[in-house]
Amino acid sequence: MIRLGISGYGNLGRGVEAAVMHNPDIELKIIFTRRDPASITPITKGVKVEKAENAAAYKDEIDVLILCGGSATDLPVQTPQFAAMFNVVDSFDTHANIPAHFEEVDGAAKKSGKLALISCGWDPGMFSIARVYGDSVLPGGATYTFWGKGVSQGHSDAIRRVEGVVDARQYTVPVQAALDAVRSGKNPELSTREKHTRECYVVVEEGADKARIEKEIKEMPNYFADYDTTVNFISQEELNAKHKGIPHGGFVIRSGKTGADYEFNNVVEYSLKLDSNPAFTSSVLVAYARAVSRMSNEGKTGCVTVLDIPPAYLSAKSGEELRKIML
Amino acid sequence: MIRLGISGYGNLGRGVEAAVMHNPDIELKIIFTRRDPASITPITKGVKVEKAENAAAYKDEIDVLILCGGSATDLPVQTPQFAAMFNVVDSFDTHANIPAHFEEVDGAAKKSGKLALISCGWDPGMFSIARVYGDSVLPGGATYTFWGKGVSQGHSDAIRRVEGVVDARQYTVPVQAALDAVRSGKNPELSTREKHTRECYVVVEEGADKARIEKEIKEMPNYFADYDTTVNFISQEELNAKHKGIPHGGFVIRSGKTGADYEFNNVVEYSLKLDSNPAFTSSVLVAYARAVSRMSNEGKTGCVTVLDIPPAYLSAKSGEELRKIML
Repeated sequence: MIRLGISGYGNLGRGVEAAVMHNPDIELKIIFTRRDPASITPITKGVKVEKAENAAAYKDEIDVLILCGGSATDLPVQTPQFAAMFNVVDSFDTHANIPAHFEEVDGAAKKSGKLALISCGWDPGMFSIARVYGDSVLPGGATYTFWGKGVSQGHSDAIRRVEGVVDARQYTVPVQAALDAVRSGKNPELSTREKHTRECYVVVEEGADKARIEKEIKEMPNYFADYDTTVNFISQEELNAKHKGIPHGGFVIRSGKTGADYEFNNVVEYSLKLDSNPAFTSSVLVAYARAVSRMSNEGKTGCVTVLDIPPAYLSAKSGEELRKIML
Repeated sequence: MIRLGISGYGNLGRGVEAAVMHNPDIELKIIFTRRDPASITPITKGVKVEKAENAAAYKDEIDVLILCGGSATDLPVQTPQFAAMFNVVDSFDTHANIPAHFEEVDGAAKKSGKLALISCGWDPGMFSIARVYGDSVLPGGATYTFWGKGVSQGHSDAIRRVEGVVDARQYTVPVQAALDAVRSGKNPELSTREKHTRECYVVVEEGADKARIEKEIKEMPNYFADYDTTVNFISQEELNAKHKGIPHGGFVIRSGKTGADYEFNNVVEYSLKLDSNPAFTSSVLVAYARAVSRMSNEGKTGCVTVLDIPPAYLSAKSGEELRKIML
């Protein structure tokens, strides 16, 4: 049995707890929290809830700790900290800061003799794997990543910060014509606007100036200005009824040529369609916790990413079984 | 530079030679053949062609040897033989015999201190990877593999053995309704007949009994009896004009549930659309030759499969570069 810990009991932490239930070789032992432990009741029987500051006392009681904090402020601090005591897995997803995060965590984990996997999940994560396989097996080509249709929490939050907005939900939607062009093997050059549209469902205060709000959303730099954005004003009841889920997904498409004269077209596509973004991310984190436990047992230390881990290490099945029934 | 050798210069061997041209860190040094070396003119300048029986003399001149023989009779003998002298990669694809082949090759490679990768390509190969990732990250679910639309050489050959048949081309075609049902997340149970149909294009001798030939094809056990098969009689000219390519591809779909009460559906799909089956397989073999060279340099010996190799090892890019631009 692999003894697992969770740090942080939000959407992702609860998702990890649920995912553990579907993996019979993994056992959830403890949840670390910054809140009052008495305020948390895990679904799983017998799981301890403990103050994060007391984590060091449990150093030898868990094999892998999954860090379920946010990438903006939690993980840059927590991952190196916890990697000094535990094998850890995090889902750090600020792409531009991955190299710096890697160095920090690698230093801490090498010093402690632990193994740390960063940036695990689906993007970065399963999508990164698809990009690297595609780029490697079809060196003459182009790689495209499309996200959606799915809820972007960051964009939903950005809308909520507009004056007069009560609640909001933003969907990122891949443009079908762009997907079709990529799948045809034409290797098109696509602008940001050509790849995705943004659909917003917005609840406003009574008497709010909808025209001003719509304009502010559509012109918001980084978030919406570079996209074709539609804003739909709806009631809180409708938002609650129709837009409370957090589905997501997307497509990684590698289009490339083979043959001595590049005469053959090839299209490799990896796609995800997820009812719940955090539930799937959690399920990926748990499979990788298994891999981290194994690699740590083999003596591997320092920081790694999903790109450094063989597929077989994720599976509860033995190498023999995999070769027999899955290869 | 990785120094590569090829054993066997048929469709696959020529494909490997072409694929090497698109990988600047890999150099083709030698082609081993059972034919008269003088009968072979490689496209690549400066490549030596040598009798297979003289291979031992080149032990120290190449880093990895890609074995391009057939799975029925060539590879079961050749892979253990060559693994006694070289790091090797083969595309052994008789799924049922993989465990036995693995044992044979593992013994030979461990003895020689070489590394051997077997069953590389797209199925087994990239599709196996997709199956294992899907099964691991979504433990509550079902995995489906569909092949096509594409040419099955084995089925085309089987038709050619029917009396009165001059030439034939057989396409394996996935059934759209089955694909749709799987993608909907319904986890349907599908019979062989429900998953694929078989389309045959057949050239017959003048005056041949077409009704008898069609019946013989459709009732052929293992190959056609369990499928809905259509037989189209065409001229040799039409077959040459429209059916000379060897396209293939297919889909691996994992459909599974997440959440504490299995309340969320998820569909993961990996698909390939290939203008040329052997050209893509070759391109995969070359990327994996890079991985084998690296793992051998790290001291790894014995037999492995694609499931044992981290994605990053396939890439010409460094770990740092991959984390920066592809993760």
